[in-house]
Amino acid sequence: MSLDFSFTYQSTQPQRSRLGTLVTPHGVVKTPAFIFCGTKAAVKGITPKQLRDAGTQFILSNTYHLMLQPGADAVAYHGGLQKFTGWRGPMLTDSGGFQIFSLGHGSVANEIKGKRQSKLQKSLLKITEDGATFRSYIDGKKWHLTPEESITIQKKLGADFIVVLDECTPFNVDKSYTERSMHMSHRWAVRSLNKFNTLNVQGNQRLYGIIQGGIFQDLRIESTDFVNSQPFFGHAIGGSLGASQSQMYDIVHFTSERLDANRPIHLLGIGGIKDIFNGVKCGIDTFDCVHPTRVARHGGALVKPENNPHPSSREHINLFNAQYLNDDTPIEKDCGCETCQTFTKGYIHHLLKAKEMNALIAISIHNIYFMNKMMEEIREGLQNQNLDQVEKKWSYAH
Amino acid sequence: MSLDFSFTYQSTQPQRSRLGTLVTPHGVVKTPAFIFCGTKAAVKGITPKQLRDAGTQFILSNTYHLMLQPGADAVAYHGGLQKFTGWRGPMLTDSGGFQIFSLGHGSVANEIKGKRQSKLQKSLLKITEDGATFRSYIDGKKWHLTPEESITIQKKLGADFIVVLDECTPFNVDKSYTERSMHMSHRWAVRSLNKFNTLNVQGNQRLYGIIQGGIFQDLRIESTDFVNSQPFFGHAIGGSLGASQSQMYDIVHFTSERLDANRPIHLLGIGGIKDIFNGVKCGIDTFDCVHPTRVARHGGALVKPENNPHPSSREHINLFNAQYLNDDTPIEKDCGCETCQTFTKGYIHHLLKAKEMNALIAISIHNIYFMNKMMEEIREGLQNQNLDQVEKKWSYAH
Repeated sequence: MSLDFSFTYQSTQPQRSRLGTLVTPHGVVKTPAFIFCGTKAAVKGITPKQLRDAGTQFILSNTYHLMLQPGADAVAYHGGLQKFTGWRGPMLTDSGGFQIFSLGHGSVANEIKGKRQSKLQKSLLKITEDGATFRSYIDGKKWHLTPEESITIQKKLGADFIVVLDECTPFNVDKSYTERSMHMSHRWAVRSLNKFNTLNVQGNQRLYGIIQGGIFQDLRIESTDFVNSQPFFGHAIGGSLGASQSQMYDIVHFTSERLDANRPIHLLGIGGIKDIFNGVKCGIDTFDCVHPTRVARHGGALVKPENNPHPSSREHINLFNAQYLNDDTPIEKDCGCETCQTFTKGYIHHLLKAKEMNALIAISIHNIYFMNKMMEEIREGLQNQNLDQVEKKWSYAH
Repeated sequence: MSLDFSFTYQSTQPQRSRLGTLVTPHGVVKTPAFIFCGTKAAVKGITPKQLRDAGTQFILSNTYHLMLQPGADAVAYHGGLQKFTGWRGPMLTDSGGFQIFSLGHGSVANEIKGKRQSKLQKSLLKITEDGATFRSYIDGKKWHLTPEESITIQKKLGADFIVVLDECTPFNVDKSYTERSMHMSHRWAVRSLNKFNTLNVQGNQRLYGIIQGGIFQDLRIESTDFVNSQPFFGHAIGGSLGASQSQMYDIVHFTSERLDANRPIHLLGIGGIKDIFNGVKCGIDTFDCVHPTRVARHGGALVKPENNPHPSSREHINLFNAQYLNDDTPIEKDCGCETCQTFTKGYIHHLLKAKEMNALIAISIHNIYFMNKMMEEIREGLQNQNLDQVEKKWSYAH
């Protein structure tokens, strides 16, 4: 196993889009690519073999969940995430910050299921220059996460790519809070880099810096210049991306334009079809979002506009709907996934009504294949200079 | 697709054991074989592809659950169970009687999860010569199931093999109840045959008769002579098999010995490893039981005695046990299943603790492969006249 990492790209049309090759010790990722969420060291309901068969290149796991259970030392004991999970391809861990802060701010309450909002809001106890103090959602135990500790934990988890701890501010804070928070996140990033350089003596990991600044262009510029000036391997666009799709597109556009083009750019938490096409045109190399697998667990199957009876409302169909009981066609007739080759919408509807986990598995397999196939066709579109045709096939106008 | 059915066998050693070939329009089953339970038209957590990859030959589904949801007409609309489920191999449905009567008698309460015992005991309303009246566990609606209606429903479900409706008496009833019930079940069997002959004009199904008689040898003899005298394709040994393993072995032994050897013999609801070796020696051709997949959903992984630290207690290990957190070996080091090729016991323990369905899926894949591999080695043992060595490897002495 080579410990080489590299990122190379060729610029393509339109706009700042590009085709990249992200080399890791666990394999090569062709970009633009989608990263699927294996929150607790597993993509819910799907085996590594099924992930590979569905064309998956790249998985992420959540430091927050894994530090609490089974603990970073347990994962390290088992040789790190890839040996532990049996997924031998490229992996990324986040810093743990998103869950701690978003739960604390109460804005992403459904991140952890089965917990009442009131309980969640108490989980974040204190944010200081040193780090964040919070309570475990499992047993209420108090934890203190510093930038250095996040890197230490991510070192033990052992993913190829790891991320600096930052404060994730919610959408509704004002500019002065956003600015102070961003400056603290920058100081945390330097501390993260220092700790990373101390620990990464084997050279088997690479560190991403995060661009903050919320919806404020001058802050985004400052944060972009900051990460460019630091020796990060890659950059991730984080923080609030605004209240509307157009505001998000503006932020992604002017942020990515200013980022060092020689480093891979990740857009955190974005997985809508239209949003991905926009991101690709801005030069985003990788995307992640729980959406494809989470919506599957609620009966939602991603479909192309031509396979959606209501393409103006959303990018999936809901197989819970009674109309699907007598539907003897697959989710998408032109789909090559195991689910569409095996099951009808009527059968999956039955499984959902009968509360069989096979429904969630079947839809997840489809949604994962769907995203991977779309990214593959995006890469072909960039290669063949016809991304507009690919976009017409996959993307929604709304 | 040929609509031929046949059963041929060669006698082997020891005792009345035999190697058989059960031909169906959906494929050939090499016997002795194990039939896995896909209660609601799905083996919980496992796709048809995973079933095939784990060596599965034969699946059963439960008429009781399917008649209530999605309903037999819905399954028929989708072309029958094999087209509906995507499992294109041989299938069997039961009559619906086991769930109706065992729930009514309160003896198999855990057949349906999440319902309180008190509610279940009310589900069976009345048994008359005509049939059984019960309430749906889903919506409380009243249903009346007759022998003819069970055949009609099973015709719509469309499995290769279907079964006569019988009254399943619990262990604790006396001989006179058992005898009266058996006689009624015999009358129901004749009604079932008559209905079957009317409906099976396409010849795409075959009917099994059931031997009742509880733990009473003279009743078992009478019931065996009855089924032998009727034009069933195959026979299933049903009813109470006693309170102890040795009583069960006695009943299986003297019942199977008397059964028409030219018809396949199924042993209903038996899936213990030692029990299967006993059954094979008595000439049983097929077995079914929820055990391998149900125990998996409770963290239980089937292992051979040499891989069990406590072989005297039970035929599985419980991966919930804290000792497995730091176990970096597969469930069985000599197992070729996807789970043992991919995951350690430590990882599956983590998944169980984290309440990830991937744990249940991983253990189910192992347990299904385990049962299929054992049956394959049993067949090889019969062929090579060394079943005793196969038994020593797989079976528990307790």
